[in-house]
Order: sequence, then structure tokens, then C-alpha cells
Amino acid sequence: MHDRIQYPKFLDLRMPAEQAAALVKPGMTVAMSGFTGAGYPKAVPGALAALMEKEQASGNPFKINVLTGASTAPELDGVLARAGGMDLRLPYMSDPELRRRINDGEMEYMDIHLSHVAQHAWFGFYGKIDLAIIEVVGIKEDGSLIPSSSVGNNKTWLDMADKVIIEVNSQQSAAMEGMHDIYYGTALPPHRKPIEMTTADQRIGEPYLRVDPAKIVAVVETNAPDRLSPFAPVDATSTQIADHLLDFLDHEIRAGRLTDKLLPLQSGVGNIANAVLAGLARGGYEGLQAYTEVIQDGMLSLLKDGTLGFASATSFSLSSDGIDEFNRHVDFYRERILLRPQEISNHPELVRRLGCIALNGMIEADIYGNVNSTNVVGSHVMNGIGGSGDFARNGYLSVFMSPSVAKGGKISGIVPMASHVDHTEHDTMILITEQGLADLRGLSPKQRAQVVIDKCAAPAYRPMLQDYFDRAKMGSYGKHTPHLLGESLSWHQRYIDTGDMRPAAAEA
Amino acid sequence: MHDRIQYPKFLDLRMPAEQAAALVKPGMTVAMSGFTGAGYPKAVPGALAALMEKEQASGNPFKINVLTGASTAPELDGVLARAGGMDLRLPYMSDPELRRRINDGEMEYMDIHLSHVAQHAWFGFYGKIDLAIIEVVGIKEDGSLIPSSSVGNNKTWLDMADKVIIEVNSQQSAAMEGMHDIYYGTALPPHRKPIEMTTADQRIGEPYLRVDPAKIVAVVETNAPDRLSPFAPVDATSTQIADHLLDFLDHEIRAGRLTDKLLPLQSGVGNIANAVLAGLARGGYEGLQAYTEVIQDGMLSLLKDGTLGFASATSFSLSSDGIDEFNRHVDFYRERILLRPQEISNHPELVRRLGCIALNGMIEADIYGNVNSTNVVGSHVMNGIGGSGDFARNGYLSVFMSPSVAKGGKISGIVPMASHVDHTEHDTMILITEQGLADLRGLSPKQRAQVVIDKCAAPAYRPMLQDYFDRAKMGSYGKHTPHLLGESLSWHQRYIDTGDMRPAAAEA
Ligand SMILES: CC(C)(COP(=O)(O)OP(=O)(O)OC[C@H]1O[C@@H](n2cnc3c(N)ncnc32)[C@H](O)[C@@H]1OP(=O)(O)O)[C@@H](O)C(=O)NCCC(=O)NCCS
Ligand SMILES: CC(C)(COP(=O)(O)OP(=O)(O)OC[C@H]1O[C@@H](n2cnc3c(N)ncnc32)[C@H](O)[C@@H]1OP(=O)(O)O)[C@@H](O)C(=O)NCCC(=O)NCCS
Repeated sequence: MHDRIQYPKFLDLRMPAEQAAALVKPGMTVAMSGFTGAGYPKAVPGALAALMEKEQASGNPFKINVLTGASTAPELDGVLARAGGMDLRLPYMSDPELRRRINDGEMEYMDIHLSHVAQHAWFGFYGKIDLAIIEVVGIKEDGSLIPSSSVGNNKTWLDMADKVIIEVNSQQSAAMEGMHDIYYGTALPPHRKPIEMTTADQRIGEPYLRVDPAKIVAVVETNAPDRLSPFAPVDATSTQIADHLLDFLDHEIRAGRLTDKLLPLQSGVGNIANAVLAGLARGGYEGLQAYTEVIQDGMLSLLKDGTLGFASATSFSLSSDGIDEFNRHVDFYRERILLRPQEISNHPELVRRLGCIALNGMIEADIYGNVNSTNVVGSHVMNGIGGSGDFARNGYLSVFMSPSVAKGGKISGIVPMASHVDHTEHDTMILITEQGLADLRGLSPKQRAQVVIDKCAAPAYRPMLQDYFDRAKMGSYGKHTPHLLGESLSWHQRYIDTGDMRPAAAEA
Repeated sequence: MHDRIQYPKFLDLRMPAEQAAALVKPGMTVAMSGFTGAGYPKAVPGALAALMEKEQASGNPFKINVLTGASTAPELDGVLARAGGMDLRLPYMSDPELRRRINDGEMEYMDIHLSHVAQHAWFGFYGKIDLAIIEVVGIKEDGSLIPSSSVGNNKTWLDMADKVIIEVNSQQSAAMEGMHDIYYGTALPPHRKPIEMTTADQRIGEPYLRVDPAKIVAVVETNAPDRLSPFAPVDATSTQIADHLLDFLDHEIRAGRLTDKLLPLQSGVGNIANAVLAGLARGGYEGLQAYTEVIQDGMLSLLKDGTLGFASATSFSLSSDGIDEFNRHVDFYRERILLRPQEISNHPELVRRLGCIALNGMIEADIYGNVNSTNVVGSHVMNGIGGSGDFARNGYLSVFMSPSVAKGGKISGIVPMASHVDHTEHDTMILITEQGLADLRGLSPKQRAQVVIDKCAAPAYRPMLQDYFDRAKMGSYGKHTPHLLGESLSWHQRYIDTGDMRPAAAEA
């Protein structure tokens, strides 16, 4: 294990997680590593949660603000949420216990574009960062850090935090060394310079994270795997969504708008995105590139079979099978993957320049193309916006995908009016459900509505949507974006009241 | 006049507007110059409208699709709308007759981020562009064009259109020559390169527009001024909004987040933005820079008194007093203003790099910070999103401003739920009304709601908002973004039903 800590001074800072956790004080803002279940600290958060529970039992409130890269795992978000130890959490999350606490109103959650987090921290919008807790693969002889399975905001946290706790996780493959690309060229305006990257496979930074050794207050040795829930198996619905996407890409190639190398792919998180990636293997493509956030299982397969030639991301988001596959063939993957800070993987400048094809899941879309990625029935947050806005807003194509119904048909994924808007009508180009694909480019709101109803709505909801739209075109106050405000959100209210968006008659 | 046309070949192409208009055929997609009432063609659209009316009277339908830079004037949008001559219009508009037709459902309107229009045209999303009609100040001996009082999308229209009609307007000051900066470095992905601009006053292009002479089918001589409605006089409300902004900027300087040079200012269109600019003169600033879309009257004053040292934009949006002032002191202004294509003035890459402070008007904001810039009561379009999303999404600070009430108090500018969302909760940082300023940075939705109610709501609506929010915190399905869907849009519906958002009791 000690070969993972090559900088002698840090050997002396080794301590048990409990002792490191005691360095955290109530009210602190603590920034942690971790992005979509990868590279989060495995030991200190648990020890901290235990400490919080002990203090709280003695009547001493103990809460902190927690900043991460994106979602982590039960060992971080789960334990801290269960301990009631967070005042505010940002940005993306997906832990069930954390989600429950947020939606029960027990704690605050702030949902930010992943490309904005680092710069907003630098701008001073989140106040001082007292402490960073960062997982690494190892510490080099010069004190620099070998990043772990995610980069996320680690560069920013290490630079900004007053103090730093390092977790050295010997279960993370040492062979990852060299796969990271940490860009040190960012600055605050007015001192910013162009980011000189023109292809997804271009290295613009360094393989290691720098840290001021004087900031390190503890080094904790761990030996635990990233823990990710397995993806749902690819089913008929996601296969149909993938097929619609493949047809569309073929159509764009025939129209001369894309070549058979497409443009760099971004693929969102979740089951649908993962399944659609698997579908891409059937497209006959070769040597595509990905400029994306996460390397999911589906992306490893595409690299393996040559569909993808290169993938740039900020994190792995692999099931345990995926981790095995990666570790077995790490030399192959090392040539084909770069992990960068999330402000670079999601940077508006780069996403626009490269012309990413943004493929993201959604909760619902309305007939005019407004997309809800975050809040079920307008109020219950699922995970957060993640990077979907970074890519949808700035990419070449913005595609949102979802089954046409959720909860066994009780919920329509296409609604009269989105109950929360994360991606506006101005930013949505293509909607796909298993029913079909709606191409909204160049269309006015009313033209979009008809295409969305015809192509994407589930059969049970299609006549209901058409009826709403027809009546709205007659009765709306303005007829640019026709709406009947008295019923535009009534489907959602009906779901809350009865557990089904369909009126009782339709159920019978 | 002929000294305005130095390229001999084009002298032969001179013809009356009526003859040029006859080159337009039904069904064509016609791209025109014009941005916020400046630099639009003055003669051909009117002749075309007359032709359309004649043809329609003989039973021959005659409609075209019209693409511009942004809003134009009665001589373009007004006459074509009145003639019923447009199938689809994009992007921004503000002509009353055009707005009426759109909201009556008589024609289609597509509302697009101004930074997206040129690239989406190049991507092929709007189909072929048959004809461009472009106003210029003059034609050089080599056939290149001296741009007029707006640049907008003219470079793209000249490059993409099959055929081009040029209007040479001798009323536009010849002294504008040299004030334009036309960037010819754009490309389609995967061939895009960084845009090497690091300050707002940096020239990166050429002063003239290129055009393939073979495309020119007509040259029409005109002699007519840009026609802009005067701005509303600065009143107490807008002075208070400006004061809140000045206090806030002082506060940010004291906190060390800004220097007294601030960062490049973007200022939106409309009365409020213009009045706030006037207010900035009271701030004691010197040598600020603007990186914005339009030069309004307020901006000329700031340049004149030294508050602003430089302004980069894509267009003038001056009242006739403003035009006089500009023409009288054109040598002064020439040193301090550059007009660029709108894809550059609004480019996400540059807006983020320069760190713009985005100051835009709005129609309404909800308690969670979602902003509606476009659709009154969710359906009646006012003008369009313009560039507000380009700057709010990518700038250093996104500020939205509005009086707390509209229509003499019958409408609240702060509502439970925005009836249309153009800027999401993820993109809004500061809301200002004459009542106060809400700083939403680093806050969760519920924290934001309380600040917005306390600081921005009008006294008459504050208790109503507090009551909604309090009950939503109890009764909402999820408590992340508490909402009561049965009443979240009821204020808007009440306005439609009764002409007042306040319940009848409150009126009495
Ligand atoms: C929207 C999102 C939750 C969909 O996730 P997914 O795994 O692809 O899709 P699924 O259909 O499996 O849905 C996931 C869950 O949301 C639920 N859901 C989906 N649509 C719903 C709707 N309209 N109403 C209520 N619940 C819905 C599903 O029922 C499922 O819940 P369950 O786990 O309790 O069964 C996911 O894409 C997401 O979090 N997106 C936002 C972030 C993002 O886009 N990131 C991309 C770059 S990081
Ligand atoms: C939102 C916007 C219309 C406000 O315009 P403004 O001139 O600053 O503000 P005003 O308060 O004078 O409002 C303009 C009109 O909108 C009306 N209005 C404003 N808020 C309203 C509301 N909540 N409900 C109904 N009408 C409203 C006003 O009554 C006024 O109408 P009137 O001319 O019939 O009196 C304007 O900022 C805009 O078009 N914004 C979108 C585009 C943009 O931001 N561009 C910036 C970069 S180009």
C-alpha cells in the first residue's frame, strides 16, 4: 500500500478515518470528490456521519454544506443524509435517502449546471471552502496526486479549500495513471484565454492534480470499490428509442448535414442513455468520438467494438461488471479515454466548438418542446439537471429521450405543459420516445406541438393531448403558444390526487 | 449618390424597389438585414408587400418565410405582416402589427437565441435561403460592402443566399465606414477553431462584408432613416431599479468579487434597460467596457461622459435624438464602438470568456427564479427571447429587472409559477424590481422564494405570494420546489378572466 504514497511527508499524515473526520466542524463548507458514483471518498464521510450522530445525540447540532462533482454513493450522500448532517447539498445527486430528505423538506439542495460549479465557486458565490476531501489513486514523489475514477471538481476543490484530506484508495486501479488531463489554464475574467482544444482526443493539461502540501491535514488509506447500481437491462422500449435515433442519424447523413463520423457524442446518465449507447453499436459506425461526462458500460462496449475511437469524459460510471472489464483491458482503454475536470468536459466553449450531439434522458416534455429533467410533478426533485443543459444549450444537436409513459402508463412523458422547465423551447431540437421521433428544428410552437403529439405521445394519451391542443388553439389568450391555464397542469394534479394522469373513465 | 456605389458592375444593376421586389416568389425563404430597428431594408419590403396584396387580390396566395437579425420596423415587419405575407418569421420581432398577427394565430413565429440563428442556418436547419435583402452604407471599388447601422446576420445571409438584393441607403452616415468588425473565421464543426478574442475592444475581423458579385440581382438606392420609437422617459420606478443595481455593484466591489472596472456590460432592449444605463452614470465609474448587442441612447451618454470607454455590439438602437447625437460626434464614437455579427456579439464562448454582466428586462419571474421574457400569461408573445439567454446563460452575472407590477398594478411581475420559462432557475442570479434586489446565488429553491418575496414583490402581492409559498411548503407533493399545481397559474387565469391578478375582494 505504501507504494501508493511516494511523498514522504504525507506518510506522516496518515491517520484513521475517525481521526480525520474529527477535523470537520459544524457549519463548515466541505467540498468532496465524486462524480456519478465514482471516485468519492469511501471512509471519512462514514466516520463523519457517525460523529455527527454522536454529537446530535448529545444535543449538539452538527450540519455542514456539501459540494461535490456530481452524484456519489451511499457511503457519502447516503450516510450524511441519514445522519441529518447536511444543511445544503450541491450540485447533482441520486442517492435515495438524500433524495427523500430533500423532498421531505428536511434540507436544502441547489441544482446547478455542472459546467458552472467550479467557476461559481471561484467567483465566490458559495462562500469560503473550509475543507476538501478527495479520493486519489496515489501520491507521487513530488506530492502531486494521481486522480481516481472521476476528476469532477477536484482541481478546484484542492486549489480553493483551506485544508485538504486525501483518501488514497488502493482498490482503484493504479493503471489509471496517465489517463487524466487536468487543465490549469482557467482564470477569472477579465483574464480568461481561449481554451486551445479543437478535437475530443486532444490533451490540453497534465496527468496529475497539484496540491499545496501545506494544506494537507490528513491522509486516509482506503481499500473499497466504487459502488454503482447496475443498469436496467436493455428492453424493447429503449431498443425502439435507439432505433429511432439511428434512423434519424441516417437521415441526417443522407441529407448531407452529418458525415458517417457524426460529431462528438455526449450521452447522459441513466438507463435510457446507457441502452441507447448499446443501440449505437448496430449503426455500423466506426471510429466515432465521444465528448461527454461519463463513461458508462455502454461506452466501453462501443470502444471495444471500434464504434467509438475515443472518449473524453470526467468520470467513469460503470457497474461492477464494467469495472472488471475496464481493469482487465486497461491498456486498451488507456489509449482511448481521457478524464478531465468537469468544467472542461462540459465547457460551453468546447461543447459548441466541437459540435456535440447531446443525448439526454428526461422526465417529461410538453407539446411545445419544453423539457423537465428534474422535478416530478413540478416539485419532487429526481436527481438534478447534471450536465444536460451544458450540452443541450451549446451542442450541435440537442436530443431528449424518454419512454412515452412512466409508472406503467399512469404517467405520460408528454404533457400539455411541463411542470418544471430545465430546457426551454429554445433549446430542444429532437424528442424521442419508443413511439417515434419529433424533429422540432425550424418549427414554430404550434407546428412543434402537432409533431410531438403525432410522433411521441403514447396511444392512450394522444387523443387527450390533441383535444387539449385543439381547444387551446381556440380558447387561448394568445395564440402563439396556445394554453388553457386552468387545465395545463391538471394532468399532474390528477396524478397527485388519484395516482393516474388519466381520468377515471379512461382507466375503467 | 453614385459615390456610394464604387463597383462599376453594380451600377448597372440599379433598379426601382418595385422591380427588385418582383424577384421575390411565393414560398421563398428570404433573409433580410435589420436588428432592433436599425439597418433594415427600407424600400423593397414595402414594394413586396404591395405586390403581395395585388397578387392576393387576384386570388394568388403569396407568402414567404422571413429571417432577419432581430426586430426591424414598420417598413419591413409592419408592411409584410399587414399584407399577410409571412408564413414563418424568425427570430426576434417587436412590430405591433406583426405581434398581433402572431398572437391571433394567423402566422407562425419561431423564437431563437440570437447567437444560434446563423449557425442553425449553416447547419441547414432552416432549409435553403433563396434570397437575401441587405441594407448597406455603400459598395467599395472591389465590390465589398460597407455595413450599415446593424450587422446582425448579414454575413451569413450574404454567404448563404442564392441571390442577393442590396439596398444602398444614402441617409446612413458614410462616416460609419471602419466601425464594423466582420469575423470570417467561423466554420462548421468539426472544423471550428477558438475565437481569439480576449477583450471587448479587440478587433478580430474586417471592416467590410464580402459578397460574391455573381449573386447580386438588384441594387436599390434608398434615402430613409432608421425608424425607432423613442424610449419612455426615465421614471421613478426605473431610477429605483438602477439604484438597487448600483448598490449591488458597490457591494460586490467591497466584497472583492468585482473591481471598479466591473466586467463587460451587456444591456438588454427596452425601456428599463435603457433607463438603467442612464442610472449607471451616477455610479462614479470610469472607462468601463460593454460587450452587448445594441447601442441604445443610454449607452451613447455613458460613452460621452467617460463612464464607458468602449462598446462592442451588433447594432445601434437609437431614437432620432440618439441618431443626431451620433452623427454630430461620429469621430468620437468611431474610436469607441465596434459592430460585429450577432453570432460574435452574443457568442457563448466570448460571453463566458469575457465574463459579461448581463442586464435584461423580463415579463415576470416566479418565486423560484424562473424567468419569463417572452409570453404574457404563457401564450401571448411580446417580442421574443432575443439575446437575453445568450448572456444570462454564459455570463458572469445574470440580472433580470422589471417593475414589480404591470398594467397599473393589475399584474404582478412576481408570480407563484412563471407561465412560460425562458431562463430557468439554474440561470438566474439576481432579480431587481423597484422594491428591491434579490440575490439568488448559492440558494436552494425555498431559500430563493423567501428572498424574492421579501425583496422584489409589490406590497399588494407580497402577502398573496407568502400565503401561496407557506401553503405550498405544507401541501406540495415534493418539497424541493413546493407548488400547489391547482393554483400555481391561477393568478394568470384570473387576469384573463377579470383583467386583474388580484381577487375581487382585494380590489375593493
Ligand atoms: C430524467 C432521468 C431521471 C431519466 O432517467 P433514466 O434512468 O434514463 O430513465 P427511467 O425511465 O429509468 O426513469 C428513472 C426514474 O424516473 C421515473 N420517471 C421517469 N419519468 C417520469 C415522470 N414523467 N414522472 C414520474 N416519474 C418519472 C421512472 O419511473 C424511474 O423511477 P423508478 O426508478 O422509481 O422506476 C435522468 O435522465 C436524469 O436524471 N436526467 C437529468 C440529468 C441529466 O440529464 N444528465 C445528463 C448529463 S449528466
Ligand atoms: C420583457 C420586455 C418586453 C420588457 O420590456 P421593457 O420595455 O423593458 O419594459 P416595460 O415595463 O416597458 O414593458 C414593456 C411592455 O410589456 C408589458 N409587460 C411587462 N410585464 C408584463 C407582464 N408581467 N404581463 C403583461 N404585460 C407585461 C408592459 O406593460 C409593456 O406593455 P405596453 O407597451 O403595452 O405598456 C423586454 O425586456 C424584452 O423584450 N425582453 C426579451 C428580449 C431581451 O431580453 N433581449 C435582451 C437582449 S436583445
